[in-house]
Amino acid sequence: MSDSAIAYFTEDDSVAAVTGRVGSDTDPRLAKVMNALVSHLHAFIKDVELTQAEWAQAIAFLTKTGQMCDGNRQEFILLSDVLGVSMLVDAINNRRPDGATENTVLGPFHVDGVPEMQMGTNISKDGVGESCLFEGRVTDLHGAPLAGARIDVWSDNAEGFYDVQQPDVQPQPNNRGIFVTGEDGRYWFAGIKPVSYPIPDDGPVGQMLGHLGRHPYRPAHMHFIVSAPGHETVIAHTFVKGDDYLRSDAVFGVKKTLIADYEATPDAATAWRSTFDFKMVPEAAT
Amino acid sequence: MSDSAIAYFTEDDSVAAVTGRVGSDTDPRLAKVMNALVSHLHAFIKDVELTQAEWAQAIAFLTKTGQMCDGNRQEFILLSDVLGVSMLVDAINNRRPDGATENTVLGPFHVDGVPEMQMGTNISKDGVGESCLFEGRVTDLHGAPLAGARIDVWSDNAEGFYDVQQPDVQPQPNNRGIFVTGEDGRYWFAGIKPVSYPIPDDGPVGQMLGHLGRHPYRPAHMHFIVSAPGHETVIAHTFVKGDDYLRSDAVFGVKKTLIADYEATPDAATAWRSTFDFKMVPEAAT
Ligand SMILES: [Fe+2]
Ligand SMILES: [Fe+2]
Repeated sequence: MSDSAIAYFTEDDSVAAVTGRVGSDTDPRLAKVMNALVSHLHAFIKDVELTQAEWAQAIAFLTKTGQMCDGNRQEFILLSDVLGVSMLVDAINNRRPDGATENTVLGPFHVDGVPEMQMGTNISKDGVGESCLFEGRVTDLHGAPLAGARIDVWSDNAEGFYDVQQPDVQPQPNNRGIFVTGEDGRYWFAGIKPVSYPIPDDGPVGQMLGHLGRHPYRPAHMHFIVSAPGHETVIAHTFVKGDDYLRSDAVFGVKKTLIADYEATPDAATAWRSTFDFKMVPEAAT
Repeated sequence: MSDSAIAYFTEDDSVAAVTGRVGSDTDPRLAKVMNALVSHLHAFIKDVELTQAEWAQAIAFLTKTGQMCDGNRQEFILLSDVLGVSMLVDAINNRRPDGATENTVLGPFHVDGVPEMQMGTNISKDGVGESCLFEGRVTDLHGAPLAGARIDVWSDNAEGFYDVQQPDVQPQPNNRGIFVTGEDGRYWFAGIKPVSYPIPDDGPVGQMLGHLGRHPYRPAHMHFIVSAPGHETVIAHTFVKGDDYLRSDAVFGVKKTLIADYEATPDAATAWRSTFDFKMVPEAAT
């Protein structure tokens, strides 16, 4: 497009006016992403004929959202989560064949540095909550067991908080563990049956959910990161079947294939048992 | 849509999964705006197949942009400006018939409380810069003069700064004035020929402009807010004809009809003269 054709901004040609400015030395991927952003953003504004007052509200909302962020709180990730953006990016970047374990969002509460534990260890260090045995197998797509698979797990406590959300409450870490499979690909560990919990809703994102008539709850889940040599890492949760919020997860993390049975056991020491098998796909050749 | 049809998020049905959650008591305009936002935002992400790393960069960028904001700096408005969003919202909300003076962005440097001055007053209180006489008429669309029109003007100084950007430099206010027309609709005041200046580019938005190969400059302009009883208020600038940045204004504020002649005069006391007439449209019936 010639310079003179795009020089002045008009409502009709607003996208070309902006994208026409991108320099010819610009990284091609950056140019593509930014030009698509401008195109879709302008289309949104034209679609709804955004008013000046609504624009000012949007500016104020984004500003408050940024100012809510600190080392412990990431309000823009929450915003991404409740708009389905986090799950959409996850879905696009983790397409897998039928039968493979699906991905879901990592969430903000994973921590590094948890020690590897012996298979069978109880990760509920405070002992509060309904005890539950988690077990299953890590296999390839054909059901062959994968040895040396690393299983990194974490859940909330019986009150619905992750240990990192209550830094003054001992013991730490609590409800976290790392296990490595043997030749049979099996894993088992004890913990508690997770409970549903609200995402932090005392900021602008919580206020927005309120205005939209949406609740802030996530259905109960155990987090898993499963990695096996030569295979794509799976970031997932297993959701507690029957949870009230399965169909209305505030962050849209639920996939049908990730809902796990949690069966009551006759065993006094372990009230529940949850079985879930992970089916891994080979790492994409790079 | 039935609850069961939209309950679980999938890549294909990502928009319905999110918009299906909006409560039935939600303000209809809010629901419309948010649902359109989700639809266009998801379309953007699908269009470019945004990677996890790019998503993380976007989160970090938005966070820094919010944290750059304080009482004196509004980095999200800058972002809106350089993406053409501010001008687009302005255009949509200020459509006017041919011949009427067009709008442009207000900008961040307007201040309230400037005193009304006698017609002809020199608003350049520091006396630094190339002197310029600004004059013209305020009329209706048919050229009939409008009495009692209020003309609120401000410009940068000879160094390219607005007085509020240099709070320690006296005199204050500088290069600002308010004038009211008489029966002939005429206005005239002295000031300096404005100079081009960069928008604040030491933050994330400036960094983004750099990556896109874009400069941060605005072409020289005098700001005007013209309001007349019974007529739509015009927020505009008059741009200095011949300025190097007319075709690449960092915030896309230039409209062809707002470019004004600045003519050299033989008069030693006033080096330049700029004539611009404002044509006002009747206020929309509400
Ligand atoms: Fe969680
Ligand atoms: Fe300006």
